[in-house]
Amino acid sequence: MRIVAALGGNALLQRGENPDAAVQQHHVHDAARSLAELVLAGHELVITHGNGPQVGLLAAESESDPDLTVPYPLDVLGAQTQGMIGTLLARELVGRLPGHAVTALVTHTEVDPYDPAFKHPDKFIGGRLTDHQARMMELDRGWTTARDGDHLRRTVPSPLPKAITELAAVRVLLASGSVVIAAGGGGIPVTRNPDTGLMRGVEAVVDKDRTAALLAEQLDADALLILTDVTHVFTRFGAAHPGPLTTVTPDRLHQLDLPAGSMRPKAEAAADFAERTGHLAVIGPLDNALGALLGTTGTTVRALPVPVGRRPRVLPEGPSAYDPAAPHATV
Amino acid sequence: MRIVAALGGNALLQRGENPDAAVQQHHVHDAARSLAELVLAGHELVITHGNGPQVGLLAAESESDPDLTVPYPLDVLGAQTQGMIGTLLARELVGRLPGHAVTALVTHTEVDPYDPAFKHPDKFIGGRLTDHQARMMELDRGWTTARDGDHLRRTVPSPLPKAITELAAVRVLLASGSVVIAAGGGGIPVTRNPDTGLMRGVEAVVDKDRTAALLAEQLDADALLILTDVTHVFTRFGAAHPGPLTTVTPDRLHQLDLPAGSMRPKAEAAADFAERTGHLAVIGPLDNALGALLGTTGTTVRALPVPVGRRPRVLPEGPSAYDPAAPHATV
Repeated sequence: MRIVAALGGNALLQRGENPDAAVQQHHVHDAARSLAELVLAGHELVITHGNGPQVGLLAAESESDPDLTVPYPLDVLGAQTQGMIGTLLARELVGRLPGHAVTALVTHTEVDPYDPAFKHPDKFIGGRLTDHQARMMELDRGWTTARDGDHLRRTVPSPLPKAITELAAVRVLLASGSVVIAAGGGGIPVTRNPDTGLMRGVEAVVDKDRTAALLAEQLDADALLILTDVTHVFTRFGAAHPGPLTTVTPDRLHQLDLPAGSMRPKAEAAADFAERTGHLAVIGPLDNALGALLGTTGTTVRALPVPVGRRPRVLPEGPSAYDPAAPHATV
Repeated sequence: MRIVAALGGNALLQRGENPDAAVQQHHVHDAARSLAELVLAGHELVITHGNGPQVGLLAAESESDPDLTVPYPLDVLGAQTQGMIGTLLARELVGRLPGHAVTALVTHTEVDPYDPAFKHPDKFIGGRLTDHQARMMELDRGWTTARDGDHLRRTVPSPLPKAITELAAVRVLLASGSVVIAAGGGGIPVTRNPDTGLMRGVEAVVDKDRTAALLAEQLDADALLILTDVTHVFTRFGAAHPGPLTTVTPDRLHQLDLPAGSMRPKAEAAADFAERTGHLAVIGPLDNALGALLGTTGTTVRALPVPVGRRPRVLPEGPSAYDPAAPHATV
């Protein structure tokens, strides 16, 4: 099977941890064990990853660098994190996969310059700002800011991914037998002139799970694994059947009330992929990627097959609602 | 022809310039025009590049980042510069090469952990230090420092490149028709355990021209172009024939008295490649890569063919000493 695995931020850094390189390397070491199992089981693997803490750190460094007149823009900082996280992942994976190549690509994600997100920057980036700091950055750098809980933070546009520039390169490398690390941080956001082909970086952050879903779809992947620090998608206490979901349809997943900043984009990406392709999506734990693929852990998302000439059954809601005997149901 | 082009630091930033991303983008824009001509002329192209100013900037930022206990190590910073310079080069090149793919790889260069360079760190990195700063960094971080002109600066080991980890990926991408950007900054320096395959980053900087020569040799490239801000290698005033060299043999190039920090490593890399492979090496101007390839500018380095059963002629020294009618001589 061809698998796209999207690693959450926790693959490199846990909330509140010291962002030293050694700490990140330590976490990647553990993640690599889990990811290597997919390859050792004979699957093709593309890895994509978040970069929130890393890009936040570099943005803050760039802001306060006395040698720069203008801090590096987000697309350039994103590219720096692809290099950094790419090497950390690659070096851990090659050690666990003797005889396999592992290749990390600098990857661009093309977005629509007319995406409405550019008028409504709503993705938080970087640390907390005082009211005064926020106002100064609005005036000096044209930032937009918004309240995240008690504090102001910078917000940037999060346009939808339209195309992965390096898609053909990913295909070629997969065909050659390499594990591929691509589209980190959602890809370096660029716009492309349809007439000239000219590419420009834009100050934006593409959601990494949406990019992973697009990448999986365009690679014709058999499975999209969204790996994070929880074992399952959990329904809220108010729901009919609270608790962990083991299997769910895309429709049901779209309807669930999930936290906007964390599980919602993962759920949307998984549901969209399963819906569009009919293939498997799983939201599961980073430390057991193979289990997530096999259905022994994680929330399996799969569209119901629609028999020719028949309407789909209407299913009851609930964790193991659709066919508990299927290979991807809980064991 | 298959060409490896190594870009000097001036491809992105001139000495004394403000290191803003926009300035670097501007220079890359110009370099891309020259490089694209090689591809439009039908050649396969691998681009490698220096990263001195970029890694110096990131190292200084990391040193002064209050969120880090220990600054990012050089290998991680080098990876960040590969991401950054990779995107700047790739986006300019795709705009100039409609229909061509351009792929930037995070690339590792394997070095020998017993390389004598680790005992004699002599490559300068970062800015000037006061005597007090230098001593503090020696005590706190185990730095070595040395005098560069009037000031102290940090010195790091510069081991020889032994292997390019992503060599197969470069081959595969070239075969697919992509321009490849690889081994930036000499490659991310790593050691590899011969038994387990485990890879570790090391605090070192591999000379980018030496890495370019190794890459060109291992890719069986027809030409190595070392592109910089001068049109030719210049012999010193004390030499028998002072002035620009248009053609030169590897032997002669090894013997020339050249500045240690700038032209010497380029000359060594070009001479080694020409000597080992019998193929063409050129040290020439960044703004005319095609001219350098065709011999209309630059210093062409080529080993003399040794006729079977005959000793090589003993040649007089001088700029155009060997066969001015050859295709790579000055026009």
